Amino acid sequence: MTPTHTLEINGTRLWQSLMDLARIGATDKGGNCRLALTELDGQGRDLVVGWMKEAGLEITIDQVGNIFGRRPGKNPGLPPVATGSHIDTQPTGGKFDGCFGVMAGLEVMRTLQDHGIETEAPLELIIWTNEEGTRFVPVMMGSGVFCKIFPLETALSAVDVNGKSVRNELANIGYNGQAPVPDHELGSYFEAHIEQGPILEAADNVIGVVSGSLGLRWYDVTVTGMEAHAGPTPMPMRRDALYAATHLMQEVIRIALDYAPEGRGTVGVANVYPSSRNVIPGKVTFSVDLRHERADKLAEMDARLRAACTALANGTTTGYTVDVQLQDIQHFPPTPFTPELVNAVREQAEARGYSHQSIVTGAGHDAVYVARVAPTAMIFVPCKDGISHNEIEDAKPEHLEAGANVLLGALLERAGRVA
Amino acid sequence: MTPTHTLEINGTRLWQSLMDLARIGATDKGGNCRLALTELDGQGRDLVVGWMKEAGLEITIDQVGNIFGRRPGKNPGLPPVATGSHIDTQPTGGKFDGCFGVMAGLEVMRTLQDHGIETEAPLELIIWTNEEGTRFVPVMMGSGVFCKIFPLETALSAVDVNGKSVRNELANIGYNGQAPVPDHELGSYFEAHIEQGPILEAADNVIGVVSGSLGLRWYDVTVTGMEAHAGPTPMPMRRDALYAATHLMQEVIRIALDYAPEGRGTVGVANVYPSSRNVIPGKVTFSVDLRHERADKLAEMDARLRAACTALANGTTTGYTVDVQLQDIQHFPPTPFTPELVNAVREQAEARGYSHQSIVTGAGHDAVYVARVAPTAMIFVPCKDGISHNEIEDAKPEHLEAGANVLLGALLERAGRVA
Repeated sequence: MTPTHTLEINGTRLWQSLMDLARIGATDKGGNCRLALTELDGQGRDLVVGWMKEAGLEITIDQVGNIFGRRPGKNPGLPPVATGSHIDTQPTGGKFDGCFGVMAGLEVMRTLQDHGIETEAPLELIIWTNEEGTRFVPVMMGSGVFCKIFPLETALSAVDVNGKSVRNELANIGYNGQAPVPDHELGSYFEAHIEQGPILEAADNVIGVVSGSLGLRWYDVTVTGMEAHAGPTPMPMRRDALYAATHLMQEVIRIALDYAPEGRGTVGVANVYPSSRNVIPGKVTFSVDLRHERADKLAEMDARLRAACTALANGTTTGYTVDVQLQDIQHFPPTPFTPELVNAVREQAEARGYSHQSIVTGAGHDAVYVARVAPTAMIFVPCKDGISHNEIEDAKPEHLEAGANVLLGALLERAGRVA
Repeated sequence: MTPTHTLEINGTRLWQSLMDLARIGATDKGGNCRLALTELDGQGRDLVVGWMKEAGLEITIDQVGNIFGRRPGKNPGLPPVATGSHIDTQPTGGKFDGCFGVMAGLEVMRTLQDHGIETEAPLELIIWTNEEGTRFVPVMMGSGVFCKIFPLETALSAVDVNGKSVRNELANIGYNGQAPVPDHELGSYFEAHIEQGPILEAADNVIGVVSGSLGLRWYDVTVTGMEAHAGPTPMPMRRDALYAATHLMQEVIRIALDYAPEGRGTVGVANVYPSSRNVIPGKVTFSVDLRHERADKLAEMDARLRAACTALANGTTTGYTVDVQLQDIQHFPPTPFTPELVNAVREQAEARGYSHQSIVTGAGHDAVYVARVAPTAMIFVPCKDGISHNEIEDAKPEHLEAGANVLLGALLERAGRVA
């Protein structure tokens, strides 16, 4: 019997399947547009489900359109060791975000079929519905319902900008399944994904051993000063809302730098009122995004932000008072992945000689929800320049192959290979 | 003969005329909406021209609709000593901006008539067309043509958002005069105006002796970094355009503070791209407005801004490079007013016992153009909270009366009172 760590998937077949899937909804710039539950998404699902059946998987569709492809194990009483991701894309998305995780799982199933390998526990390949959340919110919809983050009805009654509902659009493409959500437990869950960031590429590492996801806090801030004419108003008599706000914007970055390397801080949106060249701004609104791997550190960052708001409001920062409103918009605590599964990923990378490093995911993934209900880990591979959610998103075939090999090994290790 | 410095205008009549004019185009919130060359502007002009005729003034209308009311002097060969302002308003304007200057001049003419006072030089009350520039650009249109800042045809062919031209709208309200622009010189020009800023009120002074207008430089700045996902991108690998831009925005304020008290700096407009909560900004555009009373200081401020752009671009400021484009939008050099006329204003305030101070105007006025062709000065009175271009614009009757008394005295001093 070939030892697991020398058993390899077929990299050429993996790449070809990714390219074949990418033809559906291909964009002129080399990207992909297959928004969730559109006819193109339906065509993509049909293509992949066909491949899953050819690989010997037994298909179940649940009521939110999640697709489960089961490969029986020797012991049908064990919960399945699962892998998966999504195949819906952003409007100007790439070929790899989501699709790589599904195609890597498919390639593992094909490889096991080629080699006639049996496992103790069943294996399962999952395609989650509407991960991107571009057409329908909530994002990570299919995994969210499966993991009981929100009710099925919330998902089914969501409508797009044209008033079309998830319920109707699922039926329209024939993926309004009958299985309850959820109707089974997962023994383990692995998700392979492009990194969507620049870390692996910069370090020249092939495999990211993902230890968990960053916690996230989103806020909206409103700074109100006093609108006045730019000409006649001397500097000391101003209560310039924008000048005040820039101090808080910079503090967001300083907080993140002080919590390096895992602290992150971003001001992505800012609006100035009344927005006239010769009027001192009376009001500025902006978003704040703080992230950290550890809940205690994220709480400290939150406290720093609140203290900065107070100092800005009472005039300590600028010498004049302003009104500062900090509104909580969203709070996801950090999600550590399961150490045994994380170790399985690391050991496979090590055994196969792939350069690797620990990493956390800053982006949301179905795995982050699944981690709440089942042992979970993720496998990252580099993407070009760290760019994703973009038609120029790119990844190297050898990196994708390496990621799928690690997935193969980790799944076999968790499911138990029958000698 | 009553000495000039004890001769007084009728404050009650001045206030009443301001309130009567404010009925035309009155807004619900107590403001005024008489946009240039609308029917309401026509009604306002008709009312004031009627009063001017009653005060014994001889009316001339020029081809851009400027109204001149001449009070003959003993020596008709002398150029007139003039005063005036405008009676068009902002869409949500107040009762005093512009109107006070015209009504103060009218009240001086009425007072001279009441007392049978004759002057050596003729006196002239001028209503300039379209000072506000809200409906038609260029702003300060009537004085701009009179002072040869731009050609008559530029003004006449200007159109509003509905495609209506100044030429047609002047004819429509009957103010398409025949007099060439200009058809005479001005011996001196005084303009009384509310301050439109908070300085006099804060210092509890009644009269602002305006020594000139601030020079102004307008710029548009574009800072380009690299758009990236807020989650997966570590702080040291970012080229955040907004974080970079905030340093330049703050430098604008620091430059102004370093050139206190007359330096002013404002960022009134800022736009962030792509403006998504979890995307690091790739581009920020913003406006810069720098002002100073002295041309050499304004040039130094300009040099400081350019140096800050360079330091930001090459990474000195933030540790990462960005592209910084600084585009010149407008440059008005400082306009000092005429010392003899400025002194005349100060002497009248002093002789009449009004608290006063030197001040510069940060806002644009017809007087700033007139200063290029004739000896000019302005007289400021306080306005409530420094607010103008707003329906809540307000001023105290006793301050307006004081301003008109100073105007009376200054005009008589320059025109020469016949004993």
